[in-house]
Amino acid sequence: MKKYNFSAGPSILPQQTIEETAKAILDFNGSSLSLMEVSHRGKDFQLVMDETIELFKELLEIPAGYSVIFLGGGASLQFCMVPFNLLEKKAAYLNTGTWASKALKEAKLFGEVVEVASSKADNFSYIPKDYVIPTDADYFHITTNNTIFGTELHTDLDSPVPLVADMSSDIFSRPIDVSKYALIYGGAQKNLAPAGLTFVIVKDELLGKVTRPIPTMLDYRVHIENGSMFNTPPVVPIYGAMQTLRWLKANGGVPAMYKRNIEKANLIYNEIDNNPLFRGTCAVEDRSIMNVCFVMSNEYKDLEADFAQFATEKGMSGLKGHRSVGGFRASIYNAMPLSGVQALVDCMQEFAKKNVK
Amino acid sequence: MKKYNFSAGPSILPQQTIEETAKAILDFNGSSLSLMEVSHRGKDFQLVMDETIELFKELLEIPAGYSVIFLGGGASLQFCMVPFNLLEKKAAYLNTGTWASKALKEAKLFGEVVEVASSKADNFSYIPKDYVIPTDADYFHITTNNTIFGTELHTDLDSPVPLVADMSSDIFSRPIDVSKYALIYGGAQKNLAPAGLTFVIVKDELLGKVTRPIPTMLDYRVHIENGSMFNTPPVVPIYGAMQTLRWLKANGGVPAMYKRNIEKANLIYNEIDNNPLFRGTCAVEDRSIMNVCFVMSNEYKDLEADFAQFATEKGMSGLKGHRSVGGFRASIYNAMPLSGVQALVDCMQEFAKKNVK
Repeated sequence: MKKYNFSAGPSILPQQTIEETAKAILDFNGSSLSLMEVSHRGKDFQLVMDETIELFKELLEIPAGYSVIFLGGGASLQFCMVPFNLLEKKAAYLNTGTWASKALKEAKLFGEVVEVASSKADNFSYIPKDYVIPTDADYFHITTNNTIFGTELHTDLDSPVPLVADMSSDIFSRPIDVSKYALIYGGAQKNLAPAGLTFVIVKDELLGKVTRPIPTMLDYRVHIENGSMFNTPPVVPIYGAMQTLRWLKANGGVPAMYKRNIEKANLIYNEIDNNPLFRGTCAVEDRSIMNVCFVMSNEYKDLEADFAQFATEKGMSGLKGHRSVGGFRASIYNAMPLSGVQALVDCMQEFAKKNVK
Repeated sequence: MKKYNFSAGPSILPQQTIEETAKAILDFNGSSLSLMEVSHRGKDFQLVMDETIELFKELLEIPAGYSVIFLGGGASLQFCMVPFNLLEKKAAYLNTGTWASKALKEAKLFGEVVEVASSKADNFSYIPKDYVIPTDADYFHITTNNTIFGTELHTDLDSPVPLVADMSSDIFSRPIDVSKYALIYGGAQKNLAPAGLTFVIVKDELLGKVTRPIPTMLDYRVHIENGSMFNTPPVVPIYGAMQTLRWLKANGGVPAMYKRNIEKANLIYNEIDNNPLFRGTCAVEDRSIMNVCFVMSNEYKDLEADFAQFATEKGMSGLKGHRSVGGFRASIYNAMPLSGVQALVDCMQEFAKKNVK
């Protein structure tokens, strides 16, 4: 049976990424060696690293003065690396969800932290809009897409202080103006690569301003100076990222992805809004185009388990909502085709036909 | 042409690890989903995590009271995580090479560091034996195998304070008495898995004794409490590790590996000692059974490039020595068969026949 992977992460990747990675694991570049066993210092892998960084710069139109680095440890490690490198006295955080809260909590180990606004009281169902960013903060931290709650910042904010963004779950999903950000980071396991890779895009001039000593592996400058090869990088995930970015480029780049993502999001949100069985959980204007959260409407609450089973039988995988929200979550990352979303919509309609009173 | 992979790391892995990982990337457990895109919270991956931890415990005979955790970031990140978690006032380090020096340097950010001995003046060509471990140190740190210089500690040391060991390049190569260690860590990309995975074996009672606040992701207790799933773990490398450990178990476990490793090491060192073209670079009693360093003997120094080319033409890959030592380095990890070492020896003999004056 055809499976549709709606997992929140690790999550659906382009078929090309999957097939080319499997091929390279059996034989990397015709070397008779596996991608898993070649030296990261070899010419062939250096070419992979170089191309992946170049594709990042090209596809996101990253201006001069920024570096792209690849690390291990996940976005969660960035929650402490960001303040380690940038927080001298005070930092501002916008609290829009579980991950934003974790990032904020970590920063408190390093200095004063101002929570400029929070939607926690409403279970993070919207993105706060009215708040003041303290102009004496070292940086302002946002989470552009809240994977768990299905909300998303749809524009690049104007910030009076350096803007730091966790874009783990929406990088490459819409065109962004990188020049508005001082630092962008994220785990790669949503729109990019298998788990185990973290990307950081950082404005070079931002670094070297804190007075604390920084452990070597947590110092962005070390990784920039060493071209992400200070120590052994996660070779296989970087190769996967390169394949995904090649696929993205061949399919029209970020603007084309964005157009497709909007179509996909409209299709599923339209169904949620019109199907009496379901309702969305977020403020309409803040709905994520990557993670679509919905629950059974009040009248049909008792059908949740039935729909879950029905959807599974139809090949829908990873639809279970996060326990913080309940219900369902369809993660429709770049690699999810419109036909996948259509299959889910068909499934919702078929279930409605049988069950609407 | 058959290739023999003597790379220092990432390095040769069992064919089973390579083939099974490639297979799972195309279809994980018959799920019609790729190993690269399944949720780490799913039942199927939990089974992989559980089995990998169990195999660690079984194959290394890890006693009760120890936890095994898997992290990202490489052994280099452990250079700061160890003192973050364990160094309250003073730590002792044995300086046996480049990586030991880096670990020692990092600890200085956290407290007083005593270098109990160093072989740096002799380009780390031996393991110092006569030194005193301060009994008031929080721990004593060693690097059991020095990948770059080809020296190895062949026994489990007795230490009056908790013993911490970087075993990146010799874990699973010989039976060890884990009870003599407080913490063992290493990058997986030598004897275990593709790059991007770090293992930590830690005695639970050792933790929670320092007074400093520890960033969440750098706190071993967080990863223990969350079964290495506090954040998304490196899924593919963990799957690779499980396959390698299954292979290891099926092939007689660590004692059988050790027997084979001794045979392999004897074969190549015997050739180095008897072939007039070559000489070893380390103290004989400290020679590593994992990384075999050798150079051209003085009389034949000018033949280095010729031998390098000759060996490459015979299918030997990754033989170039690290720039700190020069010459050649044959890394003969667990997955290297005796026939691979024999092929290298044949190649050395054939080259000698043509060139010995």
